[in-house]
Amino acid sequence: MTSQQSPAQLEKQEIWQKDRDHFMHPWTDFSTFKETGSMVFHRADGVSLQDADGKRYLDGIGGLWCVNIGYGRDEIAEAVAAQIRDIPYFSTFGHHTTAPAARLAAKLAELAPGDLNHVFYGCGGSVANDTAVRMIHFYFNQLGKTSKKQIISRIDGYHGSTYMAMSITGVEFDHIGFDIDRQLVHHISCPNPYRRPEEQSLEAFCDEKVKELEDKILELGPDNVAAFFAEPIMGAGGVIVPPEGYHRKTLEVCRKYDVLYVSDEVVTAFGRLGHMFASEDEFGIVPDIITCAKGLTSGYLPLGATIFSDRIYEVISEPQADGAIFTHGFTYSGHPVSCAAGLKNIEIMEREGLCDHVKDVGAYFESRIKALSDLEIVGDIRGRKFMMCLENVADKATRELIAPEAKVGNRIADECQKRGLIVRPLAHMNILSPTLILTREHVDFVADTLRESIEAATASLKADGYLPR
Amino acid sequence: MTSQQSPAQLEKQEIWQKDRDHFMHPWTDFSTFKETGSMVFHRADGVSLQDADGKRYLDGIGGLWCVNIGYGRDEIAEAVAAQIRDIPYFSTFGHHTTAPAARLAAKLAELAPGDLNHVFYGCGGSVANDTAVRMIHFYFNQLGKTSKKQIISRIDGYHGSTYMAMSITGVEFDHIGFDIDRQLVHHISCPNPYRRPEEQSLEAFCDEKVKELEDKILELGPDNVAAFFAEPIMGAGGVIVPPEGYHRKTLEVCRKYDVLYVSDEVVTAFGRLGHMFASEDEFGIVPDIITCAKGLTSGYLPLGATIFSDRIYEVISEPQADGAIFTHGFTYSGHPVSCAAGLKNIEIMEREGLCDHVKDVGAYFESRIKALSDLEIVGDIRGRKFMMCLENVADKATRELIAPEAKVGNRIADECQKRGLIVRPLAHMNILSPTLILTREHVDFVADTLRESIEAATASLKADGYLPR
Repeated sequence: MTSQQSPAQLEKQEIWQKDRDHFMHPWTDFSTFKETGSMVFHRADGVSLQDADGKRYLDGIGGLWCVNIGYGRDEIAEAVAAQIRDIPYFSTFGHHTTAPAARLAAKLAELAPGDLNHVFYGCGGSVANDTAVRMIHFYFNQLGKTSKKQIISRIDGYHGSTYMAMSITGVEFDHIGFDIDRQLVHHISCPNPYRRPEEQSLEAFCDEKVKELEDKILELGPDNVAAFFAEPIMGAGGVIVPPEGYHRKTLEVCRKYDVLYVSDEVVTAFGRLGHMFASEDEFGIVPDIITCAKGLTSGYLPLGATIFSDRIYEVISEPQADGAIFTHGFTYSGHPVSCAAGLKNIEIMEREGLCDHVKDVGAYFESRIKALSDLEIVGDIRGRKFMMCLENVADKATRELIAPEAKVGNRIADECQKRGLIVRPLAHMNILSPTLILTREHVDFVADTLRESIEAATASLKADGYLPR
Repeated sequence: MTSQQSPAQLEKQEIWQKDRDHFMHPWTDFSTFKETGSMVFHRADGVSLQDADGKRYLDGIGGLWCVNIGYGRDEIAEAVAAQIRDIPYFSTFGHHTTAPAARLAAKLAELAPGDLNHVFYGCGGSVANDTAVRMIHFYFNQLGKTSKKQIISRIDGYHGSTYMAMSITGVEFDHIGFDIDRQLVHHISCPNPYRRPEEQSLEAFCDEKVKELEDKILELGPDNVAAFFAEPIMGAGGVIVPPEGYHRKTLEVCRKYDVLYVSDEVVTAFGRLGHMFASEDEFGIVPDIITCAKGLTSGYLPLGATIFSDRIYEVISEPQADGAIFTHGFTYSGHPVSCAAGLKNIEIMEREGLCDHVKDVGAYFESRIKALSDLEIVGDIRGRKFMMCLENVADKATRELIAPEAKVGNRIADECQKRGLIVRPLAHMNILSPTLILTREHVDFVADTLRESIEAATASLKADGYLPR
């Protein structure tokens, strides 16, 4: 620190130092972190963020697939402050409640498809999925089917980071160096059409993936398999959209063997695809359980929910013998302030017709991003509406990847950042999941900036010898 | 609903109905829930709550061991609203941060004992403990000690409700009907002095419990045991205070076999015993990891933390081979709004000298509650400062319990509630964990009301034939 530094610079330096020395981040890359530390964000409004130097960026990742209504919503600040003044917290264990927790549960029951009328709260997606596992075990125990406990999920599915949620997660990179439960969880392959054999039709590919689920159930024994976990569109695994019919057919397989279907809508719910929930409205299925978080509060406060069917409720709400109770839950289950934020968030979404906006401008976004497929290194562009992914490759014909050490995802993200756009690098891919309030002008900025940035990254890859000149 | 009902009554009815139909509570007792539904709390300030009818209650359980600074703190509402207006959220994955997350991490490093200088954030105690397990596995994997994975904890220890946290939890009642991991976790017995053999000295009891830990490590093999999880004072297991010397001696055993010591301070931290952290200041030990939540924000917003040592950081922050990173964490790790609430909460605690207040008035509370031991059914009163438990018995000499179906804990809690005091029933026990801002007058009200209520419950137990007249 020198005497020439302004108060703002001193503050930036203070925060940078404290962060580097004391804040252990999720997904830290320690090959660089101790040297570079963190980029500090200070302000945000609408579709944009500002760093500590006041530079503005359009947030192309919506916080982390979550700030659906955009930043700077004074209404949320007001609703949250009012709830804190009324009653900031009380235990919901057993037979106590507050108005926001009750009202939001009723609202979610109204919005969720089919008979998914019951809500168990946590503070995020990981815990929503962890709760689903525990609830499913309890459900089959209550039915006397005590061997029915195994979970099937998919390679490249992402379901969170508690010990159990990460065990269900099938992104193999995320398991490196850690332990997971390999007794209860079984992964089948990823329904990624881009990586199917060249000669295989989409229909044949779909049937193969559905058959793999059925084969796995039969291999483990239907009496041992409790549930199938699946995101309608895989998120952190690289925005994988399964082929047409996959959702319906996998649900039919589950029904056939009394396997519960858990639809992980942590990313897809609350407008990202133009619906409050995507399972039925986008993919035509009514699962047994929907897990959600993120868009539920637009990320303004931590909240998650496990929404489940009347059928499950009827079984688990039967009193157990010997005075036992439903001994699962969290201090912050149904936190009144988080629920107040959730209620206000949904109110804003409905009042502003945000789902309709996504159907319109999100479709424009999808088309403008897909138009980048002419670029030399863009092998696949997939996703729907405001949930998109670009997969970068060395060779579009063979779909061969660029060498990992070239860090193509990071190169493109860095080029975007220079130009005032934040996109997420994910290995050799880039992910886009902006706020849902983008205008067409914003969409044009994103698409144009991304094109320039990919071209610049391509040039640098050539200069560095990672691609032929 | 009839036309005579006031708007307030209609609102109360609406909330009650929505709650009952759609909000699945933690620890629901379905033998009564569908009929009774939930009690609705609408307002709270200072040490008290108000129900939907405007009736006031002194909150003897501090929300759920958490509302340490009391209700109605306008400063928290202001700080939270200001942070939402500045920036309500951005991902902390990898190399991004916000000021509150960085500053709170530095503050926690300053407050935590020894070299516990690094903070991993989640949204509650369950996830803080779940994270500790995953971090410990990663730590030993990095060291090449890939067999060192087993966890030892204690019967009646409570560590949360994710699949892994509930597996570590040793409250056997909480496992009924659910599944837990029985491969990784092993429970040793509870160091509850009240339940030791009559002829055994406290010293011999302590040595026996310490030896049991060492024996379990030797049985499993020191190369297979990764960590010991223990609350300094067990909370939800019934406020068990281990005998003098137990903490130091168990830590020594852990050190001898390179077993990491995780001190679960979800309840004991942030003033409940008169210290910011109790491990060192109350019990003289510096563990490897402290997990905390609850009092960290006084429950105003969801937040938890896993605070760990330089020794662990040095190992886990070594870059892994092959570009792998520390793939653990949550969307809401380091949530800026929750962290802003935590910072303001700690500022209030320090400015008002709340720890000193607890050392004074908490000691008075402890003495007044302990003076209830003359009551006919009160077998044991244990705990320290604002963390107390009454164990009710049928016979003080034999320590025999009253029949479970008499629900003595509920009877006492109901009698207290009639008199405007909330205490927590826990099987045959009652727990007190009020806000930390009680005055001596409040303490007198709690102690006097509790005495009256226990006397009334005793009379009803006699009338119902559960106790001799």
